[in-house]
This record gives sequence, structure tokens and C-alpha cells, in this order.
Amino acid sequence: MDRIINFDHASATQPLPEVVESMMPFLRDNYGNPSSMHVLGQQAKMAIDKAREQVAKLINADPEEIIFTASGSESNNFALKGVAFANRKKGDHIIVSAIEHFSVLQAAKSLEKLGYQITQISVDKDGLIDPEDVKKAITDKTILISVHHANPEIGTIEPIEEIGRIAREKGVLFHSDAIQTVGTIPVDVKKLNVDFLSLAANTFYGPKGVAGIYIRKGARINPLIDGGTQEGGRRAGTENMMSIVGMGTAAEIAVKEMDKRIAHLQSLRDLMIKLIEEKIDHISLHGHRTQRLPNNVNLGFEFIEGESILLFLGMSNIIASSGSACTSKALKASHVLLAIGVSHAIANGTILFTLGIDNTEEDVRLLGDKLPSIVDRLRSMSPLYKK
Amino acid sequence: MDRIINFDHASATQPLPEVVESMMPFLRDNYGNPSSMHVLGQQAKMAIDKAREQVAKLINADPEEIIFTASGSESNNFALKGVAFANRKKGDHIIVSAIEHFSVLQAAKSLEKLGYQITQISVDKDGLIDPEDVKKAITDKTILISVHHANPEIGTIEPIEEIGRIAREKGVLFHSDAIQTVGTIPVDVKKLNVDFLSLAANTFYGPKGVAGIYIRKGARINPLIDGGTQEGGRRAGTENMMSIVGMGTAAEIAVKEMDKRIAHLQSLRDLMIKLIEEKIDHISLHGHRTQRLPNNVNLGFEFIEGESILLFLGMSNIIASSGSACTSKALKASHVLLAIGVSHAIANGTILFTLGIDNTEEDVRLLGDKLPSIVDRLRSMSPLYKK
Repeated sequence: MDRIINFDHASATQPLPEVVESMMPFLRDNYGNPSSMHVLGQQAKMAIDKAREQVAKLINADPEEIIFTASGSESNNFALKGVAFANRKKGDHIIVSAIEHFSVLQAAKSLEKLGYQITQISVDKDGLIDPEDVKKAITDKTILISVHHANPEIGTIEPIEEIGRIAREKGVLFHSDAIQTVGTIPVDVKKLNVDFLSLAANTFYGPKGVAGIYIRKGARINPLIDGGTQEGGRRAGTENMMSIVGMGTAAEIAVKEMDKRIAHLQSLRDLMIKLIEEKIDHISLHGHRTQRLPNNVNLGFEFIEGESILLFLGMSNIIASSGSACTSKALKASHVLLAIGVSHAIANGTILFTLGIDNTEEDVRLLGDKLPSIVDRLRSMSPLYKK
Repeated sequence: MDRIINFDHASATQPLPEVVESMMPFLRDNYGNPSSMHVLGQQAKMAIDKAREQVAKLINADPEEIIFTASGSESNNFALKGVAFANRKKGDHIIVSAIEHFSVLQAAKSLEKLGYQITQISVDKDGLIDPEDVKKAITDKTILISVHHANPEIGTIEPIEEIGRIAREKGVLFHSDAIQTVGTIPVDVKKLNVDFLSLAANTFYGPKGVAGIYIRKGARINPLIDGGTQEGGRRAGTENMMSIVGMGTAAEIAVKEMDKRIAHLQSLRDLMIKLIEEKIDHISLHGHRTQRLPNNVNLGFEFIEGESILLFLGMSNIIASSGSACTSKALKASHVLLAIGVSHAIANGTILFTLGIDNTEEDVRLLGDKLPSIVDRLRSMSPLYKK
């Protein structure tokens, strides 16, 4: 198979060689359960402690504030349901943004069915949340605010620090889904004023199937998975040792290489936007132009279908996405795009390009060469398009 | 390090070489997300479909009735909370046995705090549940019965088929935690009359960090992890591809080798019990003598502490456990032993030996040689012991 040019890093990144190497001993030889008191267990315990330190360092947390989970979606469900159930006596009102990931929005919907009140905060045309809107929505029944650090589709980075300050002033717990930012841009849980923060290894070249949640010391939350004494009693279940070790390695490398990666990704992102905007008309960049993830390019192409563009790009071994991998099967117009005022038609003509550290300037220039003729060809077949 | 003789397979088994080999391509090269529409995603989708078929075959289910999770504890929490929330309008009463795993008991306790009614069914001195007791406990508000297939500590195999028949007659949903039995002894979800059944890969020489739940077609359950469209919309979160593939391989091998494994384990189990009972007095075998997991030996040693025995066994590179790995840190007397009428003193002097396919007759004979002198020595130091 020819080399695939991957502009869909949001749905999966390739684990780094160092990550895989660190996991190897835990595939078979070191198969102990870290909860066991004997030698096999203690080897595992040491490895998990190290990984917890590595991950904690990435977000400026204490190791005991990191709980490993199996996915970012689990972390988000944990935060919403765990806080809702633990603080029921205090109140029943939860505030989320309208453009959260479905694992936040659907968890909120499940809580609504159980009698909780949910307020969705709308966003402006760039996807930005106004902290003042959050402030106004707080009532004496509000127990949790959940606003993501950056949106996975349109890449907009939200004013989390300010929202966190408001939450703290008002004595309301604050969760941020930082799955798109942790490991990609600097994230400091203390600066961001968060009580809970979700992260996932695969966004920073770690393995799939492992993620985490930061729980500030003293913040009230119930387990999502009750049972054993693992993870300080906060999440039952035998630990996914090899993947946790891999996540630790990926975190350590992310700390070291972050500046270099950001510079690389940003230059590719800006080149991609520049090339496409120069060569193709009737397009729109979705999300904030500068307050934006360094690896995100989300573009709407008028008059044509995103799926058709992807099909033609695929023939040149270029892959991208029509939206979040978590919802791509649904083939519905993105709730995020609709929330920022994009029409259904343009939402269906939108492509999400997410860059990775393995992408090169050559990749981006190739896209810049291929894409205009694909768009031209599709538009020439479109009854909606008049030159 | 010298070879470790592992009699603690309940807390971790070593993944088979074939399992690890099948996982290798998914560590780095095949890193696609099965929810992506493009070529990388479709490779992953095919692999996950195959694993689902392999696991389904192990328990005589249809592939679409298998949902992958990250741990047996997650599967148990999913069953209890998912059924409770989905069937709230029908009723609020849940029946569990007193000797379930903590992931069932604590999930039930969490539901109790949310207003559900929980009935715990007690067991006899062998740990057996009387199906008539379950029948009597059912009310018109009962929505779920959860009884494990076999107990992880004392190895007793419960009359699930009969309990399932009662549940179906009464129109009550039935979940069985079959983590200890799936892959070890034959499990047929149709024969057992279950609606939900939990299983975990690591009990049958698959990787840690991956497990599953059988959900009978049409059985009402809400997700524990809301969000994406993964796993038929029943569990959000990017799939742990490599581990799911490993679980599939382990399931396929378990089907093929089951008879041979059972014969091997049972002969070692019976030899271990025979040798120890012959050589050491003032001991008791906990759990049912014959209706018992083929790999389980749970023995109470009077007058001494289990932890001390483990320490001395460790010096001979023999490892075992003082109870469930999930609770060993708690160092409390096992709720299972107390429920079958074992005294606190003997519960604290109890060792759980769990055999695996890598154990040999030589291993068991070595234990038979070492253990009597260890017990003698500890008893000679015990103020409680009079010869």
C-alpha cells in the first residue's frame, strides 16, 4: 500500500515508537496486577506510579490527582455523572456549552432524564463562549459547569481560565474536556482554575483505550465504575497496565517536544489555510482564525458534499474527515457547525483536516495541488453551482 | 529472577503468545479508528468485527449482542446502573446475592442512594444460592436480578440456569457476572437464561484492560458511558483496538482448548486439596467441594494469619493471594467468607490459590512440600495454637 497522507489525526494518531517500546514488557512478561501484594503485583504498581507522575507533570497536577480511565468519553461521563450524584443535595443544575463533545452532551441528557436541570450556553460565530453568559446562567442550584478547552471539530480554544475564575468565585465545580488540548498545547490545571479535566492518550501519540481525568484534591465526585480499591477507590477495574505505561511515555515526550510540535503544526496549518483560500473560492474557515488548535483546519465548501470530496481525496491516498469520528456514522450535520450558524448545506460540505507531527510541508502542498481540481470537478456536476 | 510459581491466576493471567502476536500489528501499524470511514478506519472495523464474532462464539451469543468494555467491573456497573436507569418506570427493586463481587455490590449501593431498593440474598455454608430464595424476593417492583455464575474467592458455581428460568417466568431481567467462568468452563447464554452477562479477557489468558458484556437482543439497558455511536451506541469511547483483537484470539483458543484445560486444572486442584488435607490439620476448604471452579482452592488455616503464610511462600517464589485482588489492599475480612459463616479469625487465616494452565503437577507437589512446615512454624509462634 502506498503511503497514506493522514489529515485525520483527530480520530487516531499513530503511537510513537518509544511509546510502543515502553509497552512491550507489559504485553506478556510483566503481567502482574498492581493490586496484588506479591512481587508480580509490585512490579506493576511501580510502573503505574511512574506513569501517573509522567501524566501529572504534563498538566501540572499532583500524581494522586490523576485517575486513569479507558477513554475520553469515560472521563467526561465520569465528571458529569460523578459530580451530579455526589452533589445532589447541594443542587441539581448543570451548565454545559452547546458545542461540547457528545459524551458531555449525552451524559447531560441522561442526567436530565433523572431530574437534573441542564442549561446549554450558546456560542458566537467563531465558537467562542462568553464567560459572562456562563456567569448569568449560574443559580443557587448550580453544581457543575462543563466547558471544553478546545472544540474537536472547529478547533476554537475557549476562555477556560476566565470561566474557571467565575466558577470558583461562585463556589461551583468546574470540569473541562481538554482532550484536544492536553499534549498538544500547554495545559496547567492550576492556571485554568479547573476542578476536573479530561484527557486522552491517543491525541498525543499514545495508545488507544487509555485516558485520564484530573480530580482536584477535595473536589466531590462519585465513581462512575464502583467496586474495587483501584485508582484510590475512584475507579474499579483491573488496570490496563501496558496502555497506562504507554500513556506515561507519550506524556513525557509531549512535555519535551511541545514547543517544537506547536511550531511545526501551526506552520502547516497556516500554510494549508493559505493555499486553499488562495486557490478555491466560495469556502469558509470554521472556528476562530487565531484562537485555534495548531493542528485544526475546518473548511466549508459551498455547493458540494463533504463525503464526495473525501472519496476523491482517498483516491490520492489523502484521508480527512467529514467531522468527529465519534459521530461520522450518523451522517447528520454537525451540531457544532449548526451552533455557530453554518447552514445545513455548508455543514454537509465541510471537511475537517487535523494535522499531526508526521505531516510534512510536502503533504500540505500535495493537498493544495489536488484539492482545487476535485472541488472544481464536483462543482461542475452540482446543480447548485453557477460559475 | 527465578521462576515464579503463580497460584494467583485470579488476579492476573499471562496472555498467551498467540494473543500477543495477534495484537502486535495494532500496536503501531494499524492505528486506525474503527469509526472512521476511510481505509485506516475500515481495517480496524474488520478486525473488531472478527473479535466480536470470536467472543460471541465462546458464549453462544450473536456478535451484535457483544459489547466490549474496559473491565469486568465496568461490565457489572453497566449492567446494574444501565438496567436500573432504563427501567425506572417499571420498578425500583433489584436483587443481588450477598457474595457478589464488589463491583456489583457497590453499584447496588450507589443505586440505593439514588432511591432504589436492594435485596441481598444470603447463601448457604458452601456459598450456594437457593433459587427459591430469589423467587420469594421478587416483587412487582423488581426490575433486575444479579447473581454471579461462580464466586471468584470460594469458587462455588451457582445454579444460574434455574435462577434465569425463574426470572424469565416472572418477567424480571437477569444479569450474571460470569467473569470467573467464561473461558474457563462452558458458558451458553441461551441455556443460562440470562439477559446480561459480564466477562473479562484476562481470566482466559487475554490482555488486561478489555472485557465485555452480553446484552440479549431487546433487553432494555441504558449506556453507562454516553456519547458516540461506537458499540451500536451502547458504549461511547474510541475502541481499544489492540486489546479487543487480543481478547478475540484468546476467546477462540479458549473454545478449542477448554476440555483439555478443565481436565488439567481439575486434576491439579484435586491434587492440591488432597495433599494439603493429608498433611495439615485444622484446615477448612471454603466453597462447594464439587460444584466448584476447576482452578479454585480456598483454604482456611486455623491459628495463623494468611498474610504470614503468603510471606513465607513468597520466599520460595510461590505466590498466592489472601483474597480478591480488588480488595486485598483493604485487608478486611472477606465479605464472602463471612457470608458463608467463616469466623473472622479463620477468614484472616485464609489463602486463595487459583491455578492456571501454566501450572504443573510439580508446582503443586512443591507447594505440598513447602506448606506444611510453613504452617507448623507459624503455628508454633502463635499464642492461639495448642498442640
